[in-house]
Amino acid sequence: MLVVKVGGSRGIDYDAFLRDLSGYDDVILVHGGSSELNDVAEALGNPPQFVTSVSGFTSRLTDRETMHMFNMIYSGKMNKMIVEKLQVLGKNAVGLSGLDGRLLEGPQKRSIKIVENGRKKIIRGDLSGLVDKVNTDLLKLLGDNGYLPVLTPPAISYESVAINIDGDRCAASVAGAMGASDLVILSNIPGLLRDPEDETSLIQNILFSEIDDHIEKYAQGRMKKKLLGAKEALAGGVKRVILGDARGENALTEALTGKGTVIQ
Amino acid sequence: MLVVKVGGSRGIDYDAFLRDLSGYDDVILVHGGSSELNDVAEALGNPPQFVTSVSGFTSRLTDRETMHMFNMIYSGKMNKMIVEKLQVLGKNAVGLSGLDGRLLEGPQKRSIKIVENGRKKIIRGDLSGLVDKVNTDLLKLLGDNGYLPVLTPPAISYESVAINIDGDRCAASVAGAMGASDLVILSNIPGLLRDPEDETSLIQNILFSEIDDHIEKYAQGRMKKKLLGAKEALAGGVKRVILGDARGENALTEALTGKGTVIQ
Repeated sequence: MLVVKVGGSRGIDYDAFLRDLSGYDDVILVHGGSSELNDVAEALGNPPQFVTSVSGFTSRLTDRETMHMFNMIYSGKMNKMIVEKLQVLGKNAVGLSGLDGRLLEGPQKRSIKIVENGRKKIIRGDLSGLVDKVNTDLLKLLGDNGYLPVLTPPAISYESVAINIDGDRCAASVAGAMGASDLVILSNIPGLLRDPEDETSLIQNILFSEIDDHIEKYAQGRMKKKLLGAKEALAGGVKRVILGDARGENALTEALTGKGTVIQ
Repeated sequence: MLVVKVGGSRGIDYDAFLRDLSGYDDVILVHGGSSELNDVAEALGNPPQFVTSVSGFTSRLTDRETMHMFNMIYSGKMNKMIVEKLQVLGKNAVGLSGLDGRLLEGPQKRSIKIVENGRKKIIRGDLSGLVDKVNTDLLKLLGDNGYLPVLTPPAISYESVAINIDGDRCAASVAGAMGASDLVILSNIPGLLRDPEDETSLIQNILFSEIDDHIEKYAQGRMKKKLLGAKEALAGGVKRVILGDARGENALTEALTGKGTVIQ
């Protein structure tokens, strides 16, 4: 079993990526939609708001209106675009959010401690949370019957509220719960870079024990969550996590042959 | 087995409707999203275009950009809003479009013959079509495992292209294929009216043999497709079709006790 996360950032050629993916069996795909959501939110007059937590992680503030737009882009445009392309490639894809069949479940965050203009502040009522339970029965039911699951945030809270979750950490939860051998996280960068401005400064290998250190030293922005996801996946029993570049012709195959940052 | 279609028109209280629905077992729900789509299409600067066929049926012109917005509203906002509300009500809903698992499949229309300013015209390449194959295996797999399927257009063509289909006729196909006893089609009117301007002019009973005559004499706009859907459902083996009013507190229960237009 292979779990693949493909990011919602710009520059990804979904046709090439999905053509490559369609050569693999026993796959679960998790996708994002962040940059598309930003565009549509702007166009609908509801520009995105991001906050930085005290531990340095960036996340999207999600009120009810944002959650509607989130569903529009993630479960609507992106998920169905991917499902349609996979169907053209002969893969019988089924697209699901974490709400469907309570596929991805976990606690809603009671509050987020953020830093704003150098000052600490607490935000309550944000529709965001974590995944700590995956409906593996439903994923197995689909997989055993020849369907390729295509998963997207949001998740569902224990009180049945839609919650925004990080896509990379969500993929890590799925990989751990399903006992996947590999988790491949693809985005529009080559992997973890020593210098984020220099794509040749790729760090090729990281040991599990070195992850925290690398989060602190090298990771910026969304890369922090990818490494956190990698750590969670390995702790959950996944053998190998690869942070790879989604922009190539055969992004997945290249990542699986070790191109990118390999964490084990 | 009961198949319920709830329309995408204005004035529907989804909380009340879904609370009522959650009291029933062995249900498949099909929903629309038409009025929401019109609003978002306008807001995104891509206003909807409708055409009238030579046989008098109105439908939405669907190019690729419209299909993206269609997925955003139907599979994104509406489907996940309904799934979340059903989860709150304790029903383990799973939302799917016709693309997912090739759930709703059929031919793309090669061309549409329309009337524009009194003149006939042929439109090609429109992303619309019909459903003539339902993946009943997937619906049974979900139903047998305790999930409540929540279905939405688009369907998928035999060439794996997303196609816009009529929601009422889609519900009729599902009801026929699943051997449902009843199909309930709820929208923001009391049923078929003798005079569309007068809500007290409800036609309470129609026989199968009278449907064509009623389409010609009384049905206008979207009501034509509801009656066509009713005819297709009954021809497919459904015992009873009820066109009911979604605006009440217990819309589904009232329709099932015969409030609305009953066709058999």
